[in-house]
Amino acid sequence: MASGASGAELANIVNEAALRAVRDGRSQVTQADLEESIEVVIAGYQKKNAILTDEERKVVAYHEVGHALVAAKQSNSAPVQKITIVPRTSGALGYTMQVEDGNHYLVSQQELENKIATLTGGRAAEELVFHSASTGASNDIEQATKLARAMITRYGMSPDFDMVALETVSNQYLGGDTSLACSAETQTEIDRQVVGLVRKQHQKAVQILEENRQKLDEIANYLYEKETITGEEFMRILNQPA
Amino acid sequence: MASGASGAELANIVNEAALRAVRDGRSQVTQADLEESIEVVIAGYQKKNAILTDEERKVVAYHEVGHALVAAKQSNSAPVQKITIVPRTSGALGYTMQVEDGNHYLVSQQELENKIATLTGGRAAEELVFHSASTGASNDIEQATKLARAMITRYGMSPDFDMVALETVSNQYLGGDTSLACSAETQTEIDRQVVGLVRKQHQKAVQILEENRQKLDEIANYLYEKETITGEEFMRILNQPA
Amino acid sequence: MASGASGAELANIVNEAALRAVRDGRSQVTQADLEESIEVVIAGYQKKNAILTDEERKVVAYHEVGHALVAAKQSNSAPVQKITIVPRTSGALGYTMQVEDGNHYLVSQQELENKIATLTGGRAAEELVFHSASTGASNDIEQATKLARAMITRYGMSPDFDMVALETVSNQYLGGDTSLACSAETQTEIDRQVVGLVRKQHQKAVQILEENRQKLDEIANYLYEKETITGEEFMRILNQPA
Amino acid sequence: MASGASGAELANIVNEAALRAVRDGRSQVTQADLEESIEVVIAGYQKKNAILTDEERKVVAYHEVGHALVAAKQSNSAPVQKITIVPRTSGALGYTMQVEDGNHYLVSQQELENKIATLTGGRAAEELVFHSASTGASNDIEQATKLARAMITRYGMSPDFDMVALETVSNQYLGGDTSLACSAETQTEIDRQVVGLVRKQHQKAVQILEENRQKLDEIANYLYEKETITGEEFMRILNQPA
Amino acid sequence: MASGASGAELANIVNEAALRAVRDGRSQVTQADLEESIEVVIAGYQKKNAILTDEERKVVAYHEVGHALVAAKQSNSAPVQKITIVPRTSGALGYTMQVEDGNHYLVSQQELENKIATLTGGRAAEELVFHSASTGASNDIEQATKLARAMITRYGMSPDFDMVALETVSNQYLGGDTSLACSAETQTEIDRQVVGLVRKQHQKAVQILEENRQKLDEIANYLYEKETITGEEFMRILNQPA
Amino acid sequence: MASGASGAELANIVNEAALRAVRDGRSQVTQADLEESIEVVIAGYQKKNAILTDEERKVVAYHEVGHALVAAKQSNSAPVQKITIVPRTSGALGYTMQVEDGNHYLVSQQELENKIATLTGGRAAEELVFHSASTGASNDIEQATKLARAMITRYGMSPDFDMVALETVSNQYLGGDTSLACSAETQTEIDRQVVGLVRKQHQKAVQILEENRQKLDEIANYLYEKETITGEEFMRILNQPA
Repeated sequence: MASGASGAELANIVNEAALRAVRDGRSQVTQADLEESIEVVIAGYQKKNAILTDEERKVVAYHEVGHALVAAKQSNSAPVQKITIVPRTSGALGYTMQVEDGNHYLVSQQELENKIATLTGGRAAEELVFHSASTGASNDIEQATKLARAMITRYGMSPDFDMVALETVSNQYLGGDTSLACSAETQTEIDRQVVGLVRKQHQKAVQILEENRQKLDEIANYLYEKETITGEEFMRILNQPA
Repeated sequence: MASGASGAELANIVNEAALRAVRDGRSQVTQADLEESIEVVIAGYQKKNAILTDEERKVVAYHEVGHALVAAKQSNSAPVQKITIVPRTSGALGYTMQVEDGNHYLVSQQELENKIATLTGGRAAEELVFHSASTGASNDIEQATKLARAMITRYGMSPDFDMVALETVSNQYLGGDTSLACSAETQTEIDRQVVGLVRKQHQKAVQILEENRQKLDEIANYLYEKETITGEEFMRILNQPA
Repeated sequence: MASGASGAELANIVNEAALRAVRDGRSQVTQADLEESIEVVIAGYQKKNAILTDEERKVVAYHEVGHALVAAKQSNSAPVQKITIVPRTSGALGYTMQVEDGNHYLVSQQELENKIATLTGGRAAEELVFHSASTGASNDIEQATKLARAMITRYGMSPDFDMVALETVSNQYLGGDTSLACSAETQTEIDRQVVGLVRKQHQKAVQILEENRQKLDEIANYLYEKETITGEEFMRILNQPA
Repeated sequence: MASGASGAELANIVNEAALRAVRDGRSQVTQADLEESIEVVIAGYQKKNAILTDEERKVVAYHEVGHALVAAKQSNSAPVQKITIVPRTSGALGYTMQVEDGNHYLVSQQELENKIATLTGGRAAEELVFHSASTGASNDIEQATKLARAMITRYGMSPDFDMVALETVSNQYLGGDTSLACSAETQTEIDRQVVGLVRKQHQKAVQILEENRQKLDEIANYLYEKETITGEEFMRILNQPA
Repeated sequence: MASGASGAELANIVNEAALRAVRDGRSQVTQADLEESIEVVIAGYQKKNAILTDEERKVVAYHEVGHALVAAKQSNSAPVQKITIVPRTSGALGYTMQVEDGNHYLVSQQELENKIATLTGGRAAEELVFHSASTGASNDIEQATKLARAMITRYGMSPDFDMVALETVSNQYLGGDTSLACSAETQTEIDRQVVGLVRKQHQKAVQILEENRQKLDEIANYLYEKETITGEEFMRILNQPA
Repeated sequence: MASGASGAELANIVNEAALRAVRDGRSQVTQADLEESIEVVIAGYQKKNAILTDEERKVVAYHEVGHALVAAKQSNSAPVQKITIVPRTSGALGYTMQVEDGNHYLVSQQELENKIATLTGGRAAEELVFHSASTGASNDIEQATKLARAMITRYGMSPDFDMVALETVSNQYLGGDTSLACSAETQTEIDRQVVGLVRKQHQKAVQILEENRQKLDEIANYLYEKETITGEEFMRILNQPA
């Protein structure tokens, strides 16, 4: 699951699009150049020789639609723009792209919780449909853990720790290196709260997918056949009367 | 929330003001040059292309007035000189400037507690008005934690530790690097006391804002419209009979 | 027990095969060159002067067939291609080569558990037949532990930790350096779960070998005499009616 | 509170006195040159532009007289030679100078405890008179903690640890870097004993000041007016019948 | 107690023997050159000026025969080839040389336990005969501990930890640097098991020596007089009817 | 208290004696040159300008005679050769020199315990006579702790840890750097045993001095007057009938 882009990424995206136009002998950067370059910068080039088995492609399709459905069914989530199961050189077997409406300066506790739920949506879909967990969610697990830890140790969102910082950050942007600045016993309590917070959002994701099981199957099958679908296609199927 | 300025910052402020006069083709540094340069050094240049949503600007206005009101309603707090919700390149979405009367060499336990209460005032206003917490308070959380830890581990202000230093400081000025010089069990007790100390001041901030809810709404709405208000404007509204 | 090959290993394999053809004065790399070079890269050159006692060779034969039998009797395990008890310069006294059908992008919890069971199969055979443990399983122990830890700390496969990452990895590929990012108490619980997970698979391996004791004896004796057998030979004996 | 001087400090003191004579166009170093240079080396130059508020100067006067009175009322304490509330560039807002009679090679447990009591005397006076603690005691806290830790971990003065060294010292002189060489549980007990030891001396300091409250007020007021007083002046007022 | 030799040691042994032949003006390396050079590489040169007291020589004789007797009375122990109480420059006051029959690739749990018992045999003899412990066993203690830790943390020989690796080794050969990769609580359990394992073998060594007390005295006295005895002499006395 | 000398120290002693003879214009190194040079290497040059108070000199005399008496009243202690209270540049305010009869290769548990008792003898005398502890024992405390730790963690002399090494030593000679290689809980138990071991020897030292109080006074007074006495003088007074 990918959302937004940093300043450095934006510069890369523009360069990448310009290179693509030059390679094609065109003097104008088109909308298509920009769209492809966005994906290259975020997820790497298409990995054409990565041939997944049909079973694997099915699991990946459900995984990605899991992310997208949980995002769409929560308020305050950025809209889905694209879902794909074409593997990329970055190692991603697929991804779901969400795009915020304009910039976003303040993030509320509710929005952070929704992001965590969305991140757990891929695994939740695998569990619901295949009654099985795979290694494919390891990146989602890492990101969900970072968000949950930040809520508890840096954003003052755990009632037990009030407005106390328990972690110091060397790089202010989310994803920067952090190190715990608290006692061993407090670290134990932080672990407990991180697990509790992620588990609750994971359960919410499972519930959302259970309540929308028919749409999950329908969209996952559609994605499995098309390989890449737009946000409009996703929303059209989602909003069709059953 | 910003207050005071270090020696290095003062030098920067003067240079900045001189540069501004030169850019404008003037041979004299004016009062306006100095005022603008103070803000540049403390908060960065105005970030003109940062367009917050109306909802975000409203939250920021209440957050800043939260700081200012808690400061104003406590004795021994430096007077508010300016409140603004114009974003700065430093990443600040707004700030409240307090200016001490003259220098200040000894800081009492009461004054340190008031500073912590003032730092929690922004989040307290968000909770009171929007029943929600945001990532906007992360810097306040970091500063409040530093002050609370110093009170307990370096200033001998916790009855449980009497006049015992539990932290060594490599740089004597507040904000210098500190490292714990005590056992794991003592660190656990320090964490507990830091949380207790911050929680108490946070609760005091909430109570001050509850008791002055009408003024909070009135000044936040005024700031929302004006974007920047002076300390005099702030005090005038605060002292108007309801 | 060895399975698969990394990109760097593949390059080495091709170079090694070319060198072998050159040494033999041939201008073509043959299938035999490639097969020998695969083993050289994975297990080192044949160590011709390593003369094991008959007793040692018997233990090694049972150890390797233990791996192979546990692998073959579980679903979703890669097929056995070759078993050998010719010592290699890498220090390996023998090995069992498994080859996946095509690439494999998603690994399920079931497959990971089967891999651990297969890794414990060598020691399980020694225990069953010789009622004794030897130092020969130390490499299997290391690999089984790595897989079990990753399942619990990075793949979200322990219900107690839900989808929380407890380890950070500096190198994304399995076998990269990892460091724990959790409290001492959580580490204790991780140790407990790793032992539980490995013990369960070890017990499964023992049970599989007990249920196939006659085939274990038959194939181990055959391997003891032949020193190297192919996957086809292995499967033929395994599938012969008793 | 300052007492004694190291060899390096003595060399600095003589150089400083010579420079002062040269600056004044004199060919002889006078007693006054030496006295001023002692203070420069120990506390820095007079900081003429540091203008404390009257309230601050009053607190500092009581703080320094607190040190001096506790020292004078204990046996085996070095005599007070000078008390001043003229701020120095070292950051000290005042200090009390004690001078030993000749050298001093063996320090008894009683003398170390008295030193700790004297160090806590400044804060004790603030508490007694202003019912308030300030950041001004942070240096006293650091020194008292070092002495108390050394008594327990290096001088065998805690019955619980008998003649066992719990800290190793890289630099033999007091103030050198030390590192704990004992278990976490022993560190917890050390912390408990350090707090107990400092608390007991702090209570003794409070009691001494309570019993001599009238003299405390008298000398502090005198110091507040004069800014600097000699040990003789201090002793004269102390010994005057009430 | 010394047994076996690494590849690097073997190279040194051959060089040493060649040098000895050259020094003696011979062009052939003799069997005697090799035997002396083996001892030089393993234990250093004879330290001719180290004059032990008679009491010390008696203790060393019993210590070395303790090792040899425990080794000889256990099955699967390498035969004793030589026992000596001539001090060496390596600091060894004596040693017992065991030589394996051919190479040895797999080491069983039983063999490892016997090695530990043999290592404790020196101290066991001192305790039995002199009712006293000396610093002479410190090297045996270090080696016994390394073997016991490896059995529990790397060879999967503790039922409580099943086939889980609790230590990572930077150098695969025994004696390479190892570091614990487990929680503090697991480390406590490892310590407990290491002590239990060593204590059990130590008790076995004491029992073996008690049951062979007469032979212990006889051989120790013989070694005390001869200073160096061969494995044949040792076995001859051991097998003589009492 | 000083005993023995390392190889490097022996080389320094000879050089120092030669320099002394040269300085005096003699071509022969005399017995007196060697004796003085021994003290220079072990304790530094005489510090002629260190003028202790009479009280301090009395305490030092009792401290040194405390060491000597405890040593003399235990069996297996090296004989006292000299006692002095002339301060040295090393910082020692006095010392007691013991000289072993010949070399000493094996040290028994009993001898190590006696060394610890002798090290605590100085403080024990201060406690007995002056009912007070001073900083003068810090070096004795450090040495006694090192010996006690080595007995428990490296020499297998604690029944609770049997023949298990709990410390690794980077430099094999006593005094080399050591680091704990065991769990936190085991470290706690080591601390407890070290304190128990030192306390027991300290109590033994107190008891020896109580039983020989008259001799302690007599010899301390004699040393106080003479400043330096020989081992013969010490033994003569000790053996005089009361």
